Amino acid sequence: MEGKRPRSVLIGFGNVGRELALLDDFWKLTRPVGVISSRGTVRIESEDDAARIREAAKGGMKLSELPSFRKGEGLEDFSGSISEGDVAFIALPPSYSTGEPNVSLVLDLLERGVAVITADKTPLALAFKKVMEASSEHRAFIGYRATVAAGTPFVDLARGLVGRSVTRLRSVLNATTNFLLSQVESGLSWRESIEIAGKMKLLEPDPSIDTEGIDAAAKLTIISNTLGFEIGLGDVRRRPLLEVSEEEVRRAAENGKRYKYVAELILPEKSASVFPMKLDAQDPLSSVHGNYNGIVVELEEGERIFLSGPAGPAWRTAKVMITDLLEYLRFYRPSH
Amino acid sequence: MEGKRPRSVLIGFGNVGRELALLDDFWKLTRPVGVISSRGTVRIESEDDAARIREAAKGGMKLSELPSFRKGEGLEDFSGSISEGDVAFIALPPSYSTGEPNVSLVLDLLERGVAVITADKTPLALAFKKVMEASSEHRAFIGYRATVAAGTPFVDLARGLVGRSVTRLRSVLNATTNFLLSQVESGLSWRESIEIAGKMKLLEPDPSIDTEGIDAAAKLTIISNTLGFEIGLGDVRRRPLLEVSEEEVRRAAENGKRYKYVAELILPEKSASVFPMKLDAQDPLSSVHGNYNGIVVELEEGERIFLSGPAGPAWRTAKVMITDLLEYLRFYRPSH
Repeated sequence: MEGKRPRSVLIGFGNVGRELALLDDFWKLTRPVGVISSRGTVRIESEDDAARIREAAKGGMKLSELPSFRKGEGLEDFSGSISEGDVAFIALPPSYSTGEPNVSLVLDLLERGVAVITADKTPLALAFKKVMEASSEHRAFIGYRATVAAGTPFVDLARGLVGRSVTRLRSVLNATTNFLLSQVESGLSWRESIEIAGKMKLLEPDPSIDTEGIDAAAKLTIISNTLGFEIGLGDVRRRPLLEVSEEEVRRAAENGKRYKYVAELILPEKSASVFPMKLDAQDPLSSVHGNYNGIVVELEEGERIFLSGPAGPAWRTAKVMITDLLEYLRFYRPSH
Repeated sequence: MEGKRPRSVLIGFGNVGRELALLDDFWKLTRPVGVISSRGTVRIESEDDAARIREAAKGGMKLSELPSFRKGEGLEDFSGSISEGDVAFIALPPSYSTGEPNVSLVLDLLERGVAVITADKTPLALAFKKVMEASSEHRAFIGYRATVAAGTPFVDLARGLVGRSVTRLRSVLNATTNFLLSQVESGLSWRESIEIAGKMKLLEPDPSIDTEGIDAAAKLTIISNTLGFEIGLGDVRRRPLLEVSEEEVRRAAENGKRYKYVAELILPEKSASVFPMKLDAQDPLSSVHGNYNGIVVELEEGERIFLSGPAGPAWRTAKVMITDLLEYLRFYRPSH
């Protein structure tokens, strides 16, 4: 952590981006030069600029509501100030259909030697290999702990199992579906549960990202690739959560069982799927509730590793981006 | 993984060292040039030499039983062939009293730019900061996943929580004490349990390393430092396992509770201790049995991360050293 702090840009000023802008470490460990949204930028050239960003973050404001907002400007307008060894924090909403502009943005940054710390799953779920190759070729750090179960180090778990004989993993990777299932267990309909989750802002703007398993599939893809088993998001078979009837969810609960929306990977076949699964009470995944995510990894001789812990919310996701930053500063930053 | 494989030496030919010598990846991913024990060396200069090492490992032989054993030779006799970017695998028995020669060996290797992958806890438990500084200053990789709960990525978990607001952690880090406690629960005396564990080779040659918490304290020290909380092995207060009476262990079990030999860290006070703790049945640590280790990390807003999984035996510890090696080759190896 010796030497001058790297410069940084924050790309995305939604829930996670705002929370990052509220963390002291963001300001102390890097020198932020700007914040970028899909519509424009705000430059940070003074203490006052920084204070205004923090105020906007605190107040839940949009970037465009700031007087210093420069409509139509983008990352390219920072090319003079963000270069090799600097850091880009990415907190954009996902773009699973085309992957763009998310994937190109990250590849472009890495090719310029900029360290990337992302909470957005898109580039890793859609182009894991390309991202890793760009990172390796240009010796540019890529931190993506925040993309899976943010609050709990699932990515670290996967890293720590590279080369081991993993045979199967089962996981609960989408906390919103925990919420929906528990609402249905307690007597509500799917429709009512989804309405409540929407009001509580637990759902993605496009709810099918949660209820049709796209979010869970993206996370499973990232875990699988991190473990060293190359799969694409499109390889993950998905069955919708709502394929199970409300009656069936309740009947299971009455019989001491429990449905969870499970993301499963079977190795070495690389068979990946997301589907509602009925679990016995003694299955460790059945106790993964609310805001929690969980994973059971089966490996050598049928033994099992189990990890569970809190996922979001946004403030925790932002803290995990700081964990990535600390790792970058300690171990990876090029000589400077 | 491009380019020529690095050369390697294996230091220590006990259970873990032998298991490493039996793994294909050890031979495929590195070019082993020798094996070193406390009493001498065996050079590997041909396919035949390699085959003889594998045979010796398979047969549980001592290094000195090989005809090509060079008594009195040591690491210094490989200084021509092991240099910057090469790999030293360390599988020596611990040396907690003086730390030597274990600590100096690792520091010396790192200072020469040699990547160190160690299953021996000594250097990290006694000189964590020095080891990390040497690694950083000389840009030499240090891999130590195998030192804590080998089969389960506890070290990765701790890495993934750097910078987070951890308040407390409790862990079961010594599987041998699980075994002793379960024997006592089922009616045996401490003395009988220890005898059986000795016959099953579950105990350290000096059993007090297990039963007085030195092993667990060393692992707790490594976890704490990895998390970023600097403590020394001497800072860990230890109460012996056998301080609990056999009757008390059994009475707890009859009442649905369970004693475990728990290693606890309270933060930010950095208060560290190892002691027999009575756990409720619903405490996740109470279900950590047999060969398993477990850890509960309490963090922001009282939420909890739980990780459990298998620790050893020696063959699994050796596999984890390969995980370190793969990380080194992919991310850290200097240009070559």
